[in-house]
Amino acid sequence: MGDPSSQPVFVLVRPQMGENIGAAARAMWNFGLDAMSITAPRDGWPNPKAVAMASGAGRLLDNARLHDDVAGAVAGCSYVFATTARGRDLTKPVFSPEAAMARAAGMIAAGEKVAVLFGPERTGLENDDVARANAIVSVPVNPDFASLNLAQCVLLMAYEWRRQAVEVTHETVPLGKGDWASRIEVDKLAEHYEDRLGQAGFFFPPEKAEGMKLNLRNLWSRMRLTRADVQMLHGVMRQMVRWKERG
Amino acid sequence: MGDPSSQPVFVLVRPQMGENIGAAARAMWNFGLDAMSITAPRDGWPNPKAVAMASGAGRLLDNARLHDDVAGAVAGCSYVFATTARGRDLTKPVFSPEAAMARAAGMIAAGEKVAVLFGPERTGLENDDVARANAIVSVPVNPDFASLNLAQCVLLMAYEWRRQAVEVTHETVPLGKGDWASRIEVDKLAEHYEDRLGQAGFFFPPEKAEGMKLNLRNLWSRMRLTRADVQMLHGVMRQMVRWKERG
Repeated sequence: MGDPSSQPVFVLVRPQMGENIGAAARAMWNFGLDAMSITAPRDGWPNPKAVAMASGAGRLLDNARLHDDVAGAVAGCSYVFATTARGRDLTKPVFSPEAAMARAAGMIAAGEKVAVLFGPERTGLENDDVARANAIVSVPVNPDFASLNLAQCVLLMAYEWRRQAVEVTHETVPLGKGDWASRIEVDKLAEHYEDRLGQAGFFFPPEKAEGMKLNLRNLWSRMRLTRADVQMLHGVMRQMVRWKERG
Repeated sequence: MGDPSSQPVFVLVRPQMGENIGAAARAMWNFGLDAMSITAPRDGWPNPKAVAMASGAGRLLDNARLHDDVAGAVAGCSYVFATTARGRDLTKPVFSPEAAMARAAGMIAAGEKVAVLFGPERTGLENDDVARANAIVSVPVNPDFASLNLAQCVLLMAYEWRRQAVEVTHETVPLGKGDWASRIEVDKLAEHYEDRLGQAGFFFPPEKAEGMKLNLRNLWSRMRLTRADVQMLHGVMRQMVRWKERG
């Protein structure tokens, strides 16, 4: 994979047609990006149709990281954007492509790892995918005709990356207490709370359990936690369990 | 044709494949543009392949103006941009897509008619076409891989038009579920956690208690909580206490 310390990783989530994967690779490389991840491609991997379409950018496919799911693809990232056309009920920041890539450039300059999720053709990202993201990117399309395909969406984001990253000097945010938590650390925190709250009977009634879990995961993702925050929140839950066990 | 007093006319110069004409129409309409001109299409006009590809944006093809050459297509325009990948010997201003569409928006607001020329697949615009333009637009592609196709070039210009002409908000947080929490609500949440965690023996050893409380308060403040978040976090803590009390 291309070096994720100098660029965002573009994650194609459950892409369907090989042609679109190849076209996405070309779109990325047009603007100098070459770090691609793919989760659960419908037609398996490698895909000859993707290779045929990628001509000239085939190296991106050879080097693409393959993952079973979004959680695996973003495990090492500290900030995740989800591109989405539809509005979502999830409360999290919504950026224009320009603002998102400006922010990504700043974070990457400060040593963070950043991912951008692109959903499957037709259906787009599911709420469960979006819940793993820190923010949403929304392309300002014509509300009467929003028909960007996968490669076009990748093209616009790659174009904005190049616009933002090539000329602009960025500020860095000083971190008093160590680094930002990685995605996998936040996922583990979410699991810890979900498990314990499950035992405690929090997710009730059952028909509301999934929605409650989604809201909770979305909250952790939105918070921009540092490693120290994650440790503290683990400590909070562990202490409440200890208190219970002392009876 | 769409109204050229409110938008630039996009002129496809000697386009070859019908599919690309249809895809260009879709790309335009994605960003609210519907004024298309076509000069000397290779495969004649109308073109059924263009119609098939344009689905949803077919109206742009129905209304497109057909011309024999560039001179005819831009006859009524006061300013013409030529998109081109290659450098030219012709001495004229070169704009980024962003700067070009910002300028176009200003001119159109002042009552001018503006056209943007897009060359045929493979060969691009000829010098004779470029010579009719007031300025060149150059997309900042990767110099090692400049392979934008016609519809992609149209897409980027249309995207920049919309960015420049329609006010784009760069960051919003949609509040699906009620308002942001007020300061006093966040303070009460912090107190709730502090009280219960105090009872549970979390703030230990005593000399570190103040620092731990400060970190926890700082976390709640940093999070930008909604009212719904605050209720959920109260619920989390109440449930842990209930669990303990059930023994």
